[in-house]
Parts: sequence; C-alpha cells; structure tokens
Amino acid sequence: MSATSSVASGTDAVDALRAIGREFHGRSWSLGTSSNYSVVVSRDPIELVITASGKDKSALGRDDFVRVDAAGTIVDAGPGRRSSAETLLHCLVADLVPSLGGGPVGAVLHTHSVWSTILSRADLARGSLRIEGFEMLKGLEGIGTHDTSVEVPIFANSQDMVELSGRIRERLSRADWGDPRRPPVHGFLLAGHGLYTWGRDLAEARRHVEIHEFLFEVVARSRMLAAGHPSA
Amino acid sequence: MSATSSVASGTDAVDALRAIGREFHGRSWSLGTSSNYSVVVSRDPIELVITASGKDKSALGRDDFVRVDAAGTIVDAGPGRRSSAETLLHCLVADLVPSLGGGPVGAVLHTHSVWSTILSRADLARGSLRIEGFEMLKGLEGIGTHDTSVEVPIFANSQDMVELSGRIRERLSRADWGDPRRPPVHGFLLAGHGLYTWGRDLAEARRHVEIHEFLFEVVARSRMLAAGHPSA
Amino acid sequence: MSATSSVASGTDAVDALRAIGREFHGRSWSLGTSSNYSVVVSRDPIELVITASGKDKSALGRDDFVRVDAAGTIVDAGPGRRSSAETLLHCLVADLVPSLGGGPVGAVLHTHSVWSTILSRADLARGSLRIEGFEMLKGLEGIGTHDTSVEVPIFANSQDMVELSGRIRERLSRADWGDPRRPPVHGFLLAGHGLYTWGRDLAEARRHVEIHEFLFEVVARSRMLAAGHPSA
Amino acid sequence: MSATSSVASGTDAVDALRAIGREFHGRSWSLGTSSNYSVVVSRDPIELVITASGKDKSALGRDDFVRVDAAGTIVDAGPGRRSSAETLLHCLVADLVPSLGGGPVGAVLHTHSVWSTILSRADLARGSLRIEGFEMLKGLEGIGTHDTSVEVPIFANSQDMVELSGRIRERLSRADWGDPRRPPVHGFLLAGHGLYTWGRDLAEARRHVEIHEFLFEVVARSRMLAAGHPSA
Repeated sequence: MSATSSVASGTDAVDALRAIGREFHGRSWSLGTSSNYSVVVSRDPIELVITASGKDKSALGRDDFVRVDAAGTIVDAGPGRRSSAETLLHCLVADLVPSLGGGPVGAVLHTHSVWSTILSRADLARGSLRIEGFEMLKGLEGIGTHDTSVEVPIFANSQDMVELSGRIRERLSRADWGDPRRPPVHGFLLAGHGLYTWGRDLAEARRHVEIHEFLFEVVARSRMLAAGHPSA
Repeated sequence: MSATSSVASGTDAVDALRAIGREFHGRSWSLGTSSNYSVVVSRDPIELVITASGKDKSALGRDDFVRVDAAGTIVDAGPGRRSSAETLLHCLVADLVPSLGGGPVGAVLHTHSVWSTILSRADLARGSLRIEGFEMLKGLEGIGTHDTSVEVPIFANSQDMVELSGRIRERLSRADWGDPRRPPVHGFLLAGHGLYTWGRDLAEARRHVEIHEFLFEVVARSRMLAAGHPSA
Repeated sequence: MSATSSVASGTDAVDALRAIGREFHGRSWSLGTSSNYSVVVSRDPIELVITASGKDKSALGRDDFVRVDAAGTIVDAGPGRRSSAETLLHCLVADLVPSLGGGPVGAVLHTHSVWSTILSRADLARGSLRIEGFEMLKGLEGIGTHDTSVEVPIFANSQDMVELSGRIRERLSRADWGDPRRPPVHGFLLAGHGLYTWGRDLAEARRHVEIHEFLFEVVARSRMLAAGHPSA
Repeated sequence: MSATSSVASGTDAVDALRAIGREFHGRSWSLGTSSNYSVVVSRDPIELVITASGKDKSALGRDDFVRVDAAGTIVDAGPGRRSSAETLLHCLVADLVPSLGGGPVGAVLHTHSVWSTILSRADLARGSLRIEGFEMLKGLEGIGTHDTSVEVPIFANSQDMVELSGRIRERLSRADWGDPRRPPVHGFLLAGHGLYTWGRDLAEARRHVEIHEFLFEVVARSRMLAAGHPSA
C-alpha cells in the first residue's frame, strides 16, 4: 500500500470535513444523515476522501470517511465503512468539470437545505433556477458583476446513480465554461433533494454553499413577497 | 427495591435526555415546559424513564425524571416529581409499535414546533399529512427512496389521555408495518400540539425528529410559495 | 439609607436580568437598546429593580439598573443612570395585576420581537389578538387545556406614558381574573412595539415570553399559510 | 512613515471590526466575502481603516485591513492586501454626512442580508423604503417617537463606484439633516445588494445595522401577512 492510499494521509482533509459537518448541521444544511462532503486528495489518478454512508454529519469521527478512485471504488476505508451511492456524483464533478474548462476542483459539497429542496421542485419543469441581478452573485468564483444571470441546472432526482450521473454528464458537457459571455456554473440541484457545488479548494466550495444558499433564500422569499404585491 | 427499579440506574439515559432537552430547546422544538422524552430501560416488563411533569426542558436536572411501567404508573421518582399525563402515550408507543411489526422502540420523543403545530391544524380534516417525493424521507428508517408517499397520521387534540390513547391505538393498529408496498410510519401528529416520533434507540428517535421537522418546514413553505405562483 | 434601598441589594436579581438580556438579544427579542426587564424586590412598599434607559441588552453591566418605587421614581441608581419612561408600565403591572386578582407579580418583561410587532399592528383594530386551540397555551400559568381562547389586549402605542398607562389601567381593571370561565391574561401588546408579560417570579415571566412568542409566530405563519389555501 | 500611518496603530479598531465580522457572519448579514466595515481613525485629514478586498468576514485576520485616505487611496496595508472598490462609498459617507449636518461619523458598516436584498429590489422604483410607525425606529439616533416616517434611500446597483458615489452624493446632498421636522437618515440601500449605515462610533453603527435589519424584516413580513388578508 502506497503512502497516499491511506485514509489517514488525508487527516487534514478529514478534520476540515468534520468541521464542515458540524457547521452545516448547525446551519440546517445537513440534517440527519443527509449530505456528503469530499476533497480531492490525488489528481493523477483522481482519488477523493469522502464521507462514508449513513453518518450523522454533526458528529463525524475520523474514521467516518472512505477513500475512493475516479470510479467511486473504495481504495481505503475505516472498519465497516461503506461509500455512499452518491459518491459517484462527487467523482463525476471532480473528473468532468476541470476537463470541460470549469477550473480545478479540489472539493465537492452536497447539502440538503429547505430552500434548495423547495426551489428545485418548483422550477424542475423549467430545467434550471435562474438567479439574476444580485450583488451576492459575485461571491461565485469568476463572476464580477451583479448584472448577470446564472442558470443553476436542475435534474429530476433518482436513486439510480449511474442513470443520474449519465444525465448530469450529458448536460454539463454542453456547458461552455470557456465562453466569457456566459457566467460560470458552480453547482446544480437535484429536485426535492439538494445542492451540489464545488470549488478549487474546500474554502471556496464552502463559500459556494453559503452563496448559493443565500441566493436560494432570497429568490424564494422574493417570490413570496411579490405574490401578494403584483405591482411591487 | 430491585436494582432496575431505581431511576438512578437509568443515569446514562437521563443524561442523554437532558442533552436532548438543551438541544431541542435551542432549536425551538421544546419551549416552556412543553415536550416529553422517554427511553425504554426495561422491555419485559416494559419500563420507561421519562421527563417529569412541568419541567423546563432547557434545564433538566438529574432528578427531573420518573420511571414508569407499561400502564404509566410511577415505579420510581425523584422527590416531588410527578409524571406527565402524556406519559400514557409514550407507554402506548413503546408497547404497541413493536407488537404490530413496527420494529423495536427504544426511545420516544414528543416535541412542539411551530411547523408541526401549523400543519397539524391545517390538515386535521384530511386525517394525515402527506409527505412525498423528498430525498430527505430516506432519513426515516426503512425508507430507501424519495419516490414514496408517507402519510403522517393526525389526531384531534385532547386533554383526556385515556380517550386519546384509545383513538391512537385503534388507528395505529390498522397500520400494516409488515406490508413492503407501504412506507413505514415513525410518528404521528396531535393537532395544534406537536409530534410524537420514536426509534430503536435515542439516536434514531432524535434523527426522526430532525427529519420530520425538516419535512414539515419544507411542506409548509412549499405551500406558501406555490400559493402565489399557481403555475410554479 | 436602609439596607433595602441599595441597587446592590438586588445583585441576584441584577445578574438574573443580565442573563435574560444576553439570552433575549440572542433570540432577537431585545435588539438595539429596546426592551426593559424588572423584578419586584420589595412589595410593601413596592420597589422594582429595572434596566436603566438606553442600554444595549446584550451587554448589561451590573450598574445598568435603577431601583424605583411604585410611582417609577428612582430611589437608587448607579452613576448617571436614568430610568426609562416605560418604567411606569412595569410599576403599573406590578401594582395593578395582583390587586385585581391576577396573582402575585415578581417580574415584568417587555420585549420587541418581529412577530409581536407585526401582529400587534395587524390586529390593533380588533383590540386584541385571539389565540385559541393550541396546546402551547398550557404554558401560560393557570391554563390547563388547549380548548380555550385567549385574547391578548392590544393598545395603540404612545410616547406619553401617563396617558398610555391610564388606558392600560382602565382596560385591565375590567379583566375579571377571578372568573373561572375565562382564561387568565398574562400579557398585553403595544401596537408596532411589543409585548409586556409577567410572572410570579422571573422564571415564570421568562416562560411567558417564550410561550407568547411561540404562539405569535404560529398565529402569524398560520395566517400566511391559510392565505394561499382558503380551504385548508 | 508617521506613527498614524500604520494599520497597526488601528489595532483596537481592527480587533473590534474582526468581532463585528464574526458576529455578522453568524447572523447571516455578511456571508461569503460580502460586506465591508470601516472605522474613521483620523479626521483631519480623514483616514479610515477598512476591511481588505475579498476576505471571509467570519475569519478576519489582523492583516486583513487597509488604511485609506479620503479618496480611498491606500496609505498603509498588510502584505498583498488590496482595498475593495466599495471603499469609495465608505469614504463618501465619512466625508459627506458630517459636512451636511448629519453628525459625526466614526464607523461605516455595509452588510448584505436577505431582507435588505429583497426589499431594496422590490421598492427600487419608489426610490426609497418607507418605514413608519414602529417603536423600534427609536433605536435610530435622533428619533424619539414611533410616530414618524423614515424614507431609506434606494439606489440602483452599479459596479462603477465613481458613477455610483456620484449619484449617492447628489441625493444625500439634498438631505436636510438640520430640519427638525424630518427624521434623520442613517443609511441607504443598494438594490439587490444591501445596506450602508453608520454611526458616531462603531457601537452606534452596529446598533443601526440591528435596528435597520429588524425593521426590514418587519416590513417585509408585514407585507406578506397583509397579502392574504386585505382587510387585516
């Protein structure tokens, strides 16, 4: 076993993800055993350290992680730890986004908030959630003005990760991250389920969760306010 | 007095329930002296350690618990502690659910949140609250897909615990927990009052509170959002 | 100066009120320099220890209190401390409620929450806020069933405390606290301003804040939910 | 380099602003790298210590600040720190408000909350957000009654700070802070962006954030409540 194949070699990453779990549980983004967090610990070949299946995110132990390869296969794990089925989506993001010009991916965060759950269902038929005109959009990497319109893709939920990752791959592959006329996309929604977002490192991915969640709340509450005030 | 008849023998349980009280008060699920929490400390015969009547859940002391038998009769208690009238519903759940195939019950948690209060009144006429299509449903034990529809029973509130427990017993007895075509039920609502949920142990019961509360908030806010956007 | 005329003699009360300030600021019930808290430290004659005017409730010092008599006149104060104009309302409650059969008053808490501000304006024309059918009503002293209807009086706001206290005195004097057919009243609202509530001691008054605030939120959100669902 | 040109000379200010960052992030007013905070550390000539560009407000280090002159030009900075483009608006407030009779400005706080974002967009066409009749208005310096009507100016957002500061200067210059018939203005909104407010010192500016935010939430929720209850 090489030195890099040990989950323990990802100790710093593990502790950082445990802190994310405590924080996100406290902010109601990762209740119950929902959510998965990963960091890319090797790039060639790709390997991720990711939360094991079924763990309470408010109390992650050091052993509650597995190390997987690009196919989501476990290469190292604590005793009895299994990988979550959704590991495949983390691997997909880590592999696909950089190859399409979306920049390096050092961490992927998947969360289940109230507002992302609601909006992803409400706008599933549209295929994406439009967020436009907010200063806070500048918190997303590569966006330098409020005067833009981001379309966060929404996918119908599925328990079949192979089928779902195929749909996501197909659609993201049409994203033209190199086109300077279009704002970059840093996340997608699963309908009635939650957000996937990422960043070049864990700090950026965490910021992208914060920014997306803020914007979801603003969009949803703005609709509610406008509903009673058609002219407002 | 046998060793198992002492409330003190339930010290671990007592400390765990005190922590639940502090947490749930902080999350606004157990304000004032509302809520009751119990753990099953003996199964044959059934005995529960349960919060005593009228205590502030944010500051439970070690003596603020009583030990009761299956009929809700106190078998041990700290000085001056009385059992809450609702103790009977905890005993009912602990006794009835396993006997009907609903799995072991190691803990019962009763909470009073804003969203459970609102929805339980709004949907009382329907007789249950329908929750369907959300990934977070998988946080309820035995549910493995979002593609399901859970009906959380709602009962008209009452101060007559014998009458109320009779109604609950009658309806839960019709639950077919063994039918694999139907998702399991892990809780019920009292209209304008709150949630009862349970689990094989306290950790599972706590998770079931979190999951139910998340879903109640999502359902209520989704209705509010949809109200102003009929086509959304 | 007698031993009882020193603010310092109310040290325990002062520390308890400082803790209330930190807690209530954190719960968004006492932002800025809003709110006033008092405890009755002498009953014959009536004297209260009450927060001084204009203090940040999240950081009350031991000197940020004054001791007043039944007329609201300062009998002892830290250097430079003034009494708030609203002191008169605390004195009114401490004096009037017990004399009308409303039970002993050991503490009066005045808070400014979002929901109390909103509802007190929305229902000012009705003259009171009706709260009925909720289990949480039992958190108000002397209420033993959800099957009741509490009318929390609402008064138009005023900066003229003599005029305002006159109106409050006039209306509360019509309260028949001894009538067992009517639920007791433990608070009133000033429109666009906030809640006054009280209790036999500070713990009960604090609980009455929690219970009223919970019920205000439930009533307001229930209306919002019902607005889009006339049949619900 | 004079003693006063060192950022380090503003150490107390820096530590106070770091505490503001932790608090405001926790209260969801300064997520991601949004928001800027400044204190005036010299008045003649004007110099401000202000948060550097692009920093996470929940974890500001002592070096994450720059010292600027009245034109926003850096006079001292930690290694690699740049000033935010919005520094110009802080300088504008610190310079303009006192010169127009708006009282001394010792600190300027810019925040990005959900409610300020929503209302600033909803009421942009009106040109200002009206807040009237709330007791909490008294938390704004110089307002002594609820019976008043404050108009918080709203400006269309822009990434061109010279253009934007020109518009703000032009409009604020029409503010007649000396007119006792009009309530003072202590802030303005950028549409879809957030709040600028200030105070004679940091404590007052912080209180003005709290008060404005409370009032924004009350105004927005009141509209939502009224939407479903035209007669309420």
